[in-house]
Amino acid sequence: MNDKPQVIRDTDDDARRQARILLRGARFAAIGVIDPESGFPFVSRVLLGMDRDGAAVILVSNLSAHTTALIADPRASLLTGEPGKGDPLAHPRLTLQCTAETVERDSDAHQRLRARFLARHPKAQLYIDFPDFRFFRLRPERASLNGGFGRAYHLSSTDFLIPKFNDDLFGSEEASLRELGGTHPGLATHIAQNIHGAPKGEWRLTAVDSHGLDIVFKDLLIRHEFVTPITDIEHLLLELPKSVYAVP
Amino acid sequence: MNDKPQVIRDTDDDARRQARILLRGARFAAIGVIDPESGFPFVSRVLLGMDRDGAAVILVSNLSAHTTALIADPRASLLTGEPGKGDPLAHPRLTLQCTAETVERDSDAHQRLRARFLARHPKAQLYIDFPDFRFFRLRPERASLNGGFGRAYHLSSTDFLIPKFNDDLFGSEEASLRELGGTHPGLATHIAQNIHGAPKGEWRLTAVDSHGLDIVFKDLLIRHEFVTPITDIEHLLLELPKSVYAVP
Repeated sequence: MNDKPQVIRDTDDDARRQARILLRGARFAAIGVIDPESGFPFVSRVLLGMDRDGAAVILVSNLSAHTTALIADPRASLLTGEPGKGDPLAHPRLTLQCTAETVERDSDAHQRLRARFLARHPKAQLYIDFPDFRFFRLRPERASLNGGFGRAYHLSSTDFLIPKFNDDLFGSEEASLRELGGTHPGLATHIAQNIHGAPKGEWRLTAVDSHGLDIVFKDLLIRHEFVTPITDIEHLLLELPKSVYAVP
Repeated sequence: MNDKPQVIRDTDDDARRQARILLRGARFAAIGVIDPESGFPFVSRVLLGMDRDGAAVILVSNLSAHTTALIADPRASLLTGEPGKGDPLAHPRLTLQCTAETVERDSDAHQRLRARFLARHPKAQLYIDFPDFRFFRLRPERASLNGGFGRAYHLSSTDFLIPKFNDDLFGSEEASLRELGGTHPGLATHIAQNIHGAPKGEWRLTAVDSHGLDIVFKDLLIRHEFVTPITDIEHLLLELPKSVYAVP
């Protein structure tokens, strides 16, 4: 299902990269769930995190409507890509359809998602450990990219899945980030300011996976997608100079 | 269904006014519909208009996914209230659940919605008369207001319905706007700049109903809600000095 009347274009690597950046670079999203009482859709706003495999992540209270709805029916949709000034329909946006997966409290997955979520949203520290809070993973099923007027594409789950690193890197993302930060202290700021034209600031790496890097400064988030996936940290450093591409 | 875990507060007139402003002052919204193929929610972005009775209005192509979905199942949801800087969850937002009503092309309703939509979104002139474009009215059923952390309210359809003016005014909104503009040429700019602290510009009145005024300048929209509903134009001019209240 696409959200624009125009003819759908053939999905190419540029469209895939733009779609990934729209999802992975979003600090928040509109989430649609199905209201179990009425069957109506219910759209609200959530902070967005990402798991290492490309699933989106939300942090919710057991008392919230999201949780009730997603336990009753795990089908959900996310809209990301915020409009700036001017015509809101001229700005690229992504509609993702996804299936919610519960994450048990205190499981390994919970600990991993907690660390990643806090790195991206430090203020969530205030409530992330409340006993009634939990994560859902939102596994991508399919998506529609609207890259602005006349540019619509369909995407599949495989366009959003992130292959694993080798075990060393995949085994400890925190250690990889520490290593990168230690050996290349200016890397995050360099990528943010020089490649993405971001404002000056003390940018820091908050996530690394084989598809790219998350770089954060205060309330700003940049998703730096590599042109080709990497397989280890050395590969990452070799890849970086080639990974410059136009920011959408 | 509420979208926050906190206790729901008793709905008062301040909450109703804030909810109305969040809906009526929104130039665009995230709309959730039910994908007839998969049953998943599908959230995308639409420009938003308003009918005089308080129904939200969208302009869609017959070829679009919205149209297909809403014809198959008229249940929809809108999210309005855009976050600015800082924590996205600290900004007020409104989740509306609504039922889509078709509007026949070239009906009186179509002409009314067309004029109101163009006044608010002049750039829609480019495609509003394409033969495959049409309007849906989205009749409010119920809503959840999240006024920021710890401020959640439930609202009903009656909180969004706008009573009719007397027949003279209700019969010709355009004439009323012309009259207001002729007799009080600085009114829109006065309300925008002096009451709402909006940037300087050539603000113009684009809609009037018994609950308030729409005031537009370029890509900015202000919804000026009266403190108490008015019944005619004279009442409006008498009411205006009293209608000053804090902009949310």
